Amino acid sequence: MKKIIRRDFIKAAALTTAAAGAWVFPSCTNPKNESPAVVSSKTYEWKMVTTWPPHFPILGEYADRLAEWINKMSSGRMQIQVYGGGELVPALEVFDAVSQGVAEMGHGAAYYWAGKIPAAQIFTSVPFGMNAQQTNAWLYDGGGLDLWRDLYSRFNLIPFPCGNTGGQMGGWFNKEINSFSDFRGLKIRMPGLGGKVISAAGASTILSPGGELYTNLERGVIDALEWVGPYHDHLMGFHKIAKYYYYPGWQEPSAVLELIVNKNAFNSLPADLQEIIKVAAHSVNVMMLSEFEAKNSEYYLLMKNKEKVQFKKFPDEVFDRLMKTTTDVLNQLAASDAASKLVYDSYKNFKTRIAPWTDIIESNYM
Amino acid sequence: MKKIIRRDFIKAAALTTAAAGAWVFPSCTNPKNESPAVVSSKTYEWKMVTTWPPHFPILGEYADRLAEWINKMSSGRMQIQVYGGGELVPALEVFDAVSQGVAEMGHGAAYYWAGKIPAAQIFTSVPFGMNAQQTNAWLYDGGGLDLWRDLYSRFNLIPFPCGNTGGQMGGWFNKEINSFSDFRGLKIRMPGLGGKVISAAGASTILSPGGELYTNLERGVIDALEWVGPYHDHLMGFHKIAKYYYYPGWQEPSAVLELIVNKNAFNSLPADLQEIIKVAAHSVNVMMLSEFEAKNSEYYLLMKNKEKVQFKKFPDEVFDRLMKTTTDVLNQLAASDAASKLVYDSYKNFKTRIAPWTDIIESNYM
Repeated sequence: MKKIIRRDFIKAAALTTAAAGAWVFPSCTNPKNESPAVVSSKTYEWKMVTTWPPHFPILGEYADRLAEWINKMSSGRMQIQVYGGGELVPALEVFDAVSQGVAEMGHGAAYYWAGKIPAAQIFTSVPFGMNAQQTNAWLYDGGGLDLWRDLYSRFNLIPFPCGNTGGQMGGWFNKEINSFSDFRGLKIRMPGLGGKVISAAGASTILSPGGELYTNLERGVIDALEWVGPYHDHLMGFHKIAKYYYYPGWQEPSAVLELIVNKNAFNSLPADLQEIIKVAAHSVNVMMLSEFEAKNSEYYLLMKNKEKVQFKKFPDEVFDRLMKTTTDVLNQLAASDAASKLVYDSYKNFKTRIAPWTDIIESNYM
Repeated sequence: MKKIIRRDFIKAAALTTAAAGAWVFPSCTNPKNESPAVVSSKTYEWKMVTTWPPHFPILGEYADRLAEWINKMSSGRMQIQVYGGGELVPALEVFDAVSQGVAEMGHGAAYYWAGKIPAAQIFTSVPFGMNAQQTNAWLYDGGGLDLWRDLYSRFNLIPFPCGNTGGQMGGWFNKEINSFSDFRGLKIRMPGLGGKVISAAGASTILSPGGELYTNLERGVIDALEWVGPYHDHLMGFHKIAKYYYYPGWQEPSAVLELIVNKNAFNSLPADLQEIIKVAAHSVNVMMLSEFEAKNSEYYLLMKNKEKVQFKKFPDEVFDRLMKTTTDVLNQLAASDAASKLVYDSYKNFKTRIAPWTDIIESNYM
């Protein structure tokens, strides 16, 4: 954006309030029209593989809607078949499938690829990190998305932020957490960087497929688990078998979902369809978060007021020590891998910059 | 969304983690393709009038970008000429111009039309109301946008949320506010519902065009003013002449910008262009907020750390009494007008529902 000096700015501001007359400036913005009304009638039939069960609430539903919107905006010239995890390729092979062109698109979350690209998980969520609004500001206007594109470019992929869960819950516990030492020996299902932190705190993190979580918690195979938030957790029925529902979700203060597109496939599209995909991804980003917030707020009240679920806040001492442990885990990650250091430094610097602003505006207001 | 019972949900969740094999279900989502690859080559040349000075930072720039994205997505079939306020029609005549078809589109804020439709201002911002994330949840998933559409329908308009400023500042003051009674006799520029509240608190609200604000504050014609936030306020140079910069912006905890489209013009468009406009508006909604947050956080630190601007927080007593006065003002608004009551009840109910969730997740986290 061109630099604006105060005098011009005020002059401009004066203009808009000068309601005296309709001043017409013939030289105002004229959208560039380099290719007027030339629309290729070629139809693209693409596949979108996802890490979600088919039509999974909110997450899978927005993959469906993304396809539907792109179809409508392109007047049917772009038809995307959406596959749930395991339908065309297993959920955890979405990245490779799109990278190799088995499917042209994928919807999921970058932290699923941590084994292959440790830095990727920073784009999804960082324990004690930024909330959804801050993260979007980092991605779109703080250099985050540029780093993400560079990182994925090596894998022949173009990433787009495409949805956000908003703040999550801290998880369901059958054991009360009164001090940091209560994590010692706790058998808990917690994936991602949060899992690494809680392991460092002495817990045993257990890998447990979504479909077995309920039974494992019921039978004591695990003592605790973290899933998503009130809406999804209620659908899973955890409130029927767990004693306490802890907050806040320090491990995922927001989680960015991703759309990945095979680079060759994207580059083969006409410019209008490329733009349609980009703008549709932005749209999912705001719409999914809104639905998460609406549903989670509803199910939180349902569980709290009607179903008398026991909500518990992590004690301050526990919270503080989890925070310190998180710093250690993130520093280790940055020390172990150059890309992680690059992305984490950018993330951390932006968080340092935006936190004081959020603090005076949002925190004081709340 | 169809109701999902727990058993099906778990079954679905199990599927996605069943990485054992690639289970292919031939019956998965197939995007409806009712009009395959039939694209009208008709070109639409539209006008967008705005309430902003031409290319006004962020606000006007996103009006330009909206036109640019629509142009690209439609392959030049939809060309929108963007006019700053006063160029084609005066800023405050945007609503009428689009309603009457003088222009097909407008970008601005609903609270500018409070004189005509008192309820409209609730869609932009409510003092002590919801932040951007909560407001989006209300609009898109809590019935807010449906009410907005009903209200504007009578004026031959279709509204779309199209941008958000995020939380604003409380304004620049040359007089210290130590108690509620300090508002008595204060000459302040503060528009909208916030202005009504501060009038009820005893201040004299002065209408002052944007271009005269600096001079009026410098010469003591006004004692205080509210503009936007650190980025825009810095461009205006208020930090050079005002003693204190107060926070938080109780009067506008977020402000929704609107895109309005003439209903006849919209209905005359083919379905693909209608969808393109809708999705582009969603996109502006998330992108503008991200830029506001990025820029405001940067300019807040610049003013605080380098330029040593004196930031002051409203004392608790002042804040509490402003809140009580706000309740009175909003109740009066609802009592005076049936549409305002309908919209305000919906807003208030949603706020009551979402506030406890925001409180445990975002507030505790911060």
